[in-house]
Amino acid sequence: MRKIEHIGIAVKSIEESNVLFEKLFGRAHYKIEEVDSEGVNTSFFQIGPNKIELLEATKEDSPIAKFIEKKGEGIHHIAYDVEDIRAEMKRLKEEGFTLLNEEPKRGADNKLVCFLHPKTTNGVLIELCQDAG
Amino acid sequence: MRKIEHIGIAVKSIEESNVLFEKLFGRAHYKIEEVDSEGVNTSFFQIGPNKIELLEATKEDSPIAKFIEKKGEGIHHIAYDVEDIRAEMKRLKEEGFTLLNEEPKRGADNKLVCFLHPKTTNGVLIELCQDAG
Repeated sequence: MRKIEHIGIAVKSIEESNVLFEKLFGRAHYKIEEVDSEGVNTSFFQIGPNKIELLEATKEDSPIAKFIEKKGEGIHHIAYDVEDIRAEMKRLKEEGFTLLNEEPKRGADNKLVCFLHPKTTNGVLIELCQDAG
Repeated sequence: MRKIEHIGIAVKSIEESNVLFEKLFGRAHYKIEEVDSEGVNTSFFQIGPNKIELLEATKEDSPIAKFIEKKGEGIHHIAYDVEDIRAEMKRLKEEGFTLLNEEPKRGADNKLVCFLHPKTTNGVLIELCQDAG
């Protein structure tokens, strides 16, 4: 793992949170992207080598809607940048972590991604992500 | 804000979580540091330009003990690296954020720190930190 690629934050309204995070960071988001397969609308802020990804549910049954219903708004996941996602998935599986998808899938921001089950990582939902090139 | 300085993760046992996170990152922690004023024991992992800080309560009434009692283990805060913490505190206060301390205080890892109240930041506890030099 080479760096924190981004932190995903679940929000109720991406429009309102864009204003809030623009005040917080002193700069505007650089991109809005809808990921239909995950039922989310995303907004990205660049903070030096890292990003903050705001996540708003676009469907009532999307994982983000369920997360907010259960825990409220807040940090949803940490994504680590990896060079070779398949090699990391293999390594982590051998170390005893539970992968939520057995094959890398397409995420926002042109990435191949894989999630680890939080029950094996001290309650932290972890995403691996590799540039899809 | 120049980068994510670290992410703080509340854990029940720093000894057990050190083993877990060493497996996750494929590398060992580089430092253990107790911060008596906050009632925590901390362990740091370096991930490129960023760090992960594990936080274990050393007192029953420490904020980390209360956090775990209420929410379980997991992500506790995001710390952003700032060049001039007093200037950032002033800017954020003027933008309407609530500071949890009016003066910078000493944190782990030789930092001056200030926290923002999560009620003003979409439920995310935010730390500003500046190298104490």
